[in-house]
Amino acid sequence: MSWNTFGRVFRFTTWGESHGPALGVVVDGCPPGIALSEADIQPFMDARKPGQSKYTTQRREADEVRILSGVFEGKTTGTPISLMIENTDQRSKDYSDVAKAYRPGHADYTYDAKYGFRDYRGGGRSSARETAARVAAGAIARKVIPEVGITAWVEQIGDVALDYARFDKGAIRSNPFFCPDPETVSRWEDLVDSARKSGSSLGALVTASAEGVPAGWGAPVYAKLDSELAAAMMTINATKGVEIGDGFAAVTNTGESNADPMRPGADGKVEFQANHAGGIAGGISTGQPVTCRVAFKPTSSILTPVDTITSEGEATQIQTKGRHDPCVGIRGVPVVEAMMALVLADQKLLHRAQCG
Amino acid sequence: MSWNTFGRVFRFTTWGESHGPALGVVVDGCPPGIALSEADIQPFMDARKPGQSKYTTQRREADEVRILSGVFEGKTTGTPISLMIENTDQRSKDYSDVAKAYRPGHADYTYDAKYGFRDYRGGGRSSARETAARVAAGAIARKVIPEVGITAWVEQIGDVALDYARFDKGAIRSNPFFCPDPETVSRWEDLVDSARKSGSSLGALVTASAEGVPAGWGAPVYAKLDSELAAAMMTINATKGVEIGDGFAAVTNTGESNADPMRPGADGKVEFQANHAGGIAGGISTGQPVTCRVAFKPTSSILTPVDTITSEGEATQIQTKGRHDPCVGIRGVPVVEAMMALVLADQKLLHRAQCG
Amino acid sequence: MSWNTFGRVFRFTTWGESHGPALGVVVDGCPPGIALSEADIQPFMDARKPGQSKYTTQRREADEVRILSGVFEGKTTGTPISLMIENTDQRSKDYSDVAKAYRPGHADYTYDAKYGFRDYRGGGRSSARETAARVAAGAIARKVIPEVGITAWVEQIGDVALDYARFDKGAIRSNPFFCPDPETVSRWEDLVDSARKSGSSLGALVTASAEGVPAGWGAPVYAKLDSELAAAMMTINATKGVEIGDGFAAVTNTGESNADPMRPGADGKVEFQANHAGGIAGGISTGQPVTCRVAFKPTSSILTPVDTITSEGEATQIQTKGRHDPCVGIRGVPVVEAMMALVLADQKLLHRAQCG
Amino acid sequence: MSWNTFGRVFRFTTWGESHGPALGVVVDGCPPGIALSEADIQPFMDARKPGQSKYTTQRREADEVRILSGVFEGKTTGTPISLMIENTDQRSKDYSDVAKAYRPGHADYTYDAKYGFRDYRGGGRSSARETAARVAAGAIARKVIPEVGITAWVEQIGDVALDYARFDKGAIRSNPFFCPDPETVSRWEDLVDSARKSGSSLGALVTASAEGVPAGWGAPVYAKLDSELAAAMMTINATKGVEIGDGFAAVTNTGESNADPMRPGADGKVEFQANHAGGIAGGISTGQPVTCRVAFKPTSSILTPVDTITSEGEATQIQTKGRHDPCVGIRGVPVVEAMMALVLADQKLLHRAQCG
Repeated sequence: MSWNTFGRVFRFTTWGESHGPALGVVVDGCPPGIALSEADIQPFMDARKPGQSKYTTQRREADEVRILSGVFEGKTTGTPISLMIENTDQRSKDYSDVAKAYRPGHADYTYDAKYGFRDYRGGGRSSARETAARVAAGAIARKVIPEVGITAWVEQIGDVALDYARFDKGAIRSNPFFCPDPETVSRWEDLVDSARKSGSSLGALVTASAEGVPAGWGAPVYAKLDSELAAAMMTINATKGVEIGDGFAAVTNTGESNADPMRPGADGKVEFQANHAGGIAGGISTGQPVTCRVAFKPTSSILTPVDTITSEGEATQIQTKGRHDPCVGIRGVPVVEAMMALVLADQKLLHRAQCG
Repeated sequence: MSWNTFGRVFRFTTWGESHGPALGVVVDGCPPGIALSEADIQPFMDARKPGQSKYTTQRREADEVRILSGVFEGKTTGTPISLMIENTDQRSKDYSDVAKAYRPGHADYTYDAKYGFRDYRGGGRSSARETAARVAAGAIARKVIPEVGITAWVEQIGDVALDYARFDKGAIRSNPFFCPDPETVSRWEDLVDSARKSGSSLGALVTASAEGVPAGWGAPVYAKLDSELAAAMMTINATKGVEIGDGFAAVTNTGESNADPMRPGADGKVEFQANHAGGIAGGISTGQPVTCRVAFKPTSSILTPVDTITSEGEATQIQTKGRHDPCVGIRGVPVVEAMMALVLADQKLLHRAQCG
Repeated sequence: MSWNTFGRVFRFTTWGESHGPALGVVVDGCPPGIALSEADIQPFMDARKPGQSKYTTQRREADEVRILSGVFEGKTTGTPISLMIENTDQRSKDYSDVAKAYRPGHADYTYDAKYGFRDYRGGGRSSARETAARVAAGAIARKVIPEVGITAWVEQIGDVALDYARFDKGAIRSNPFFCPDPETVSRWEDLVDSARKSGSSLGALVTASAEGVPAGWGAPVYAKLDSELAAAMMTINATKGVEIGDGFAAVTNTGESNADPMRPGADGKVEFQANHAGGIAGGISTGQPVTCRVAFKPTSSILTPVDTITSEGEATQIQTKGRHDPCVGIRGVPVVEAMMALVLADQKLLHRAQCG
Repeated sequence: MSWNTFGRVFRFTTWGESHGPALGVVVDGCPPGIALSEADIQPFMDARKPGQSKYTTQRREADEVRILSGVFEGKTTGTPISLMIENTDQRSKDYSDVAKAYRPGHADYTYDAKYGFRDYRGGGRSSARETAARVAAGAIARKVIPEVGITAWVEQIGDVALDYARFDKGAIRSNPFFCPDPETVSRWEDLVDSARKSGSSLGALVTASAEGVPAGWGAPVYAKLDSELAAAMMTINATKGVEIGDGFAAVTNTGESNADPMRPGADGKVEFQANHAGGIAGGISTGQPVTCRVAFKPTSSILTPVDTITSEGEATQIQTKGRHDPCVGIRGVPVVEAMMALVLADQKLLHRAQCG
């Protein structure tokens, strides 16, 4: 089934293909009276935008957002906000090889299996270009939760992890890898450049943290904050895993080492002495930073020919010559931030609905 | 927000608390004409049931399911199927300590933060007893997807992992750990027994695989099969992470080592030469086994006193004396299977809706 | 498709058949901290209960509601509230005629056409017994909107309408017809008794009004308050039409005669000089009473034999001998009230979600 | 709450305001492989388009639809179809009177009450221009249900009803009133022209019929086909009532006169001897034509000054000078058809989901 809406009361619906005339998103359920203009959205688009360094795809898109509805005299009206981004660099190259044969690891085969048919130009709807629309929606979501500060960064590329002892939040936006550890940047430059030159690709680990989420957002069972975040992150192209707090490391913790003891804080608030839980207990935020990590696989677009079949079922090989990201996880950072903002905005409104 | 329904067209709604008179589930959207009786459901209940070995909680529940609607003359009618399980061993112990102070890592504090109020008896709605209802629903879901075989097992407890070289699917049900490697069983016996005796707790890793899922189930963007599975798994109590296929290991793969090459199969079908993707590409099933792994934290219910605060904000300590699972992940196995069945049944019907 | 949930954030899911062991409802999304016990619900059940006069079906049901979850120490916890009502008078009569032939006007034929199969005992899921569950849920909804007073009554039975000049709200509960005009009661007694004796049936018009709804509940387009009410009313068995405000009479109004002029009210509020709109403009409440009218058809259960076919497609005739309501619209009154309460509670919470 | 999506599996989301740059709709869940181009949609847009006769508003809009996604090589791909219609005649007139005072009967006051703020230009989101987007979506819905033929017409304007003895389906598109009775056209010309000249307005009754709906679409309880239709119709601007089949006339029917007897048909099908039910029994289609009637109020936009208040609460009067429809129900005909198509397409897919 095609299902292009996410969220329960703060909902967004994206549309568009890699090589169609445009793509966009309709954001529904946004509270009224919020100051909003294209200028609020564009910086987030620019952070995700391709073609900004040699470490990302060379497709060049202005990614200019246009607000088509839902804003009047500079403020949200409470009615649906339609955002459109025109595609400008959908190169009219020859797609005959992709049309005829399935690229393993891409959605080519599965779309055909499902729909009997696919828009093969640049992956059609399965292209990560769709995430531009989410980033635009995410910029609106952030305005719904001004009390929350969301930051994501790359923690690891391939087998090279940053060193948290050198963590510098201010450095994240100052390098093409969203890396908070300046000393790791040059190692990633070499790594990614090498992959780019050889036509290979690399996986990455992206970490995100939301500070300022008050205790009480989320739900007991099927809209648990962690479940919503996991669902959101796993809709991003190339993601293969999601963790909250200690995540998989919790498997080797004991009840004692995994505890987040509490004590009275200075200002009458509760103070936690650890955050193994990643800011969520029983599906509901604790008031600590909400943290998650997302695993991105290396893109399947590589120069090395890979065995595959044609749409007629014949054996063949395919290699990817076009523009692509040697490490798709890097540009995943603004998307992870956007999805976190979108989930939290929805949960804030849901909490308000039930608990006033 | 309270949100106790999961699924899009094959939907289920659970209700009930740990120490209420009963708990249950309403399964809606089930196709008509499927043979169904309590006997089809009970074996799955029994697999999850507490009190069956010294390695799980000593709470003893018959966990007998009663079908209250939606079945006539032994077949589903297409109308909602209501299942009820009476609680029989909700011991009337003294809950005054839990009522007054928050158990860190449990939902005590967050429920109070959200609702200003909580049913503190056995954790109320946050208790893993809720999963009995899902297991019951999952038994129905399995009947909706007879073409699919779902199996889950424990892969690791604490830092002791099984050895896949000795994998024996037939052994899973023959030991109290759902362990497919008989030689690992005795090591886990020692490990869990030791944790039990010392009042500590252990994390676990649960792996699940669904065979027979045809290519084409899932969706391009926001109902991606992997996203739905991640959401489903992360609603299970004590889960902190979800992976599809290679999951976090994909971070250190390259595009070459992560490839799942395809070739024509013997019977006119496609044959994959690897399954790093876990049976899902672009959010849609490939026809290979759908695999996922779920991280369970060690339960926060331990004998060691932990710093916490009272509901009045005063510093105190709390320790857990009652019955509990030293390794909650073990009994997570039937729940992981149930959630997988529930997601796949929903996706099968969604696929049929759009693609006939 | 079976779809047994209604509502967007205050949601309820009903289950159960006429002749199953029980029926019930799960109410999800209810705010926490609301005082609730069976005693709050029972009076509404009693108003709808069959067998209370010779003007309704002689089936005798205690219709005792049991709260199974979601309430602790007399207050809602914010988690799902499960209510169950046991069926006690599902008479084990011979259903062979209904099993074999379709009763025209009932769901017999359409259920078979849809599901290939049906629970023919008392109409199964299509029985108006399902409305008992809604009335129970409606009692909870009323507690969510204490600012609103909802009243429904019968306005017309067959071709005998009440006279609004004699409207006495206090009289509604004092006669078996929910008639606010005492002088009309005796005419309806004769009319309904005559239909009952001859095995015929009568249609009815039910009117409902909600006072105290503040301006601002509803939505601009697809969750318009009038649309939600229309959907809700048309789910009630035997309904064939819904009107808001002047309804069909608005067709012959002009813009001038249909106007609801406004002026400043005594207390700084707005004062409307008419209410043709039924308290809704642009899908959103105006602050005036929200009014609607619902048309109930005469039940198809009549003594006169009607041409029909068997499930094998052979011509036959069928007549209804069992217990039934000669005028089903009468017992529709508490159901209409319940649905109105359920819609308004949902809209109140939705409004709070978006607009704080 | 803003809620701009309708449908369960075949879903559409509209956006846009009367005087914004554009409006549009995203259709999600459409089956793949359906031939679709702008040329399939445009005729329906043209039927609804304003400015085509002196009997409708003189706003002139090309209402040209552009497909922005979801179609490849002339066929639907199964991914969301985004349609956009640019506004071209949003006249930059002076809206200061509407900005300052509330037009009774419009959404001015209620939007302010809800959102504290509104786009007053041409009614913003509350304008019937939104229905252009639905008509576009409806054209796609029709392609999903090629087995169904949907026709709507005006049955009555003010107090002048057509004569069904002269019903000529072929005449509907040949006059500006969608009138199937040619002899009534001239009477309506006089009536509407007179209202137009005097700045008054008229109500209308629109009837719709869907032929070819097979038995079995719909649901037992909360997605009853009649409930879905009622919800859909009541979202259309200016509607105040909905009937299925005999509707309110059923109130004065008896069980005997309201019966739809069945008998074996010529071709092994069932043959109904009447259709009081409007093609729906128990919420599910019977196989007969599905019929409904919709009441449109006279627009509140009239030349006669009406008492109202300013946004500061002061008494004032307002009159409508701009372009408007003297009888909005007329242009409601293509919208009613579209909504019927949209509901039926959704129900077809839902039925397929559950019943294969």
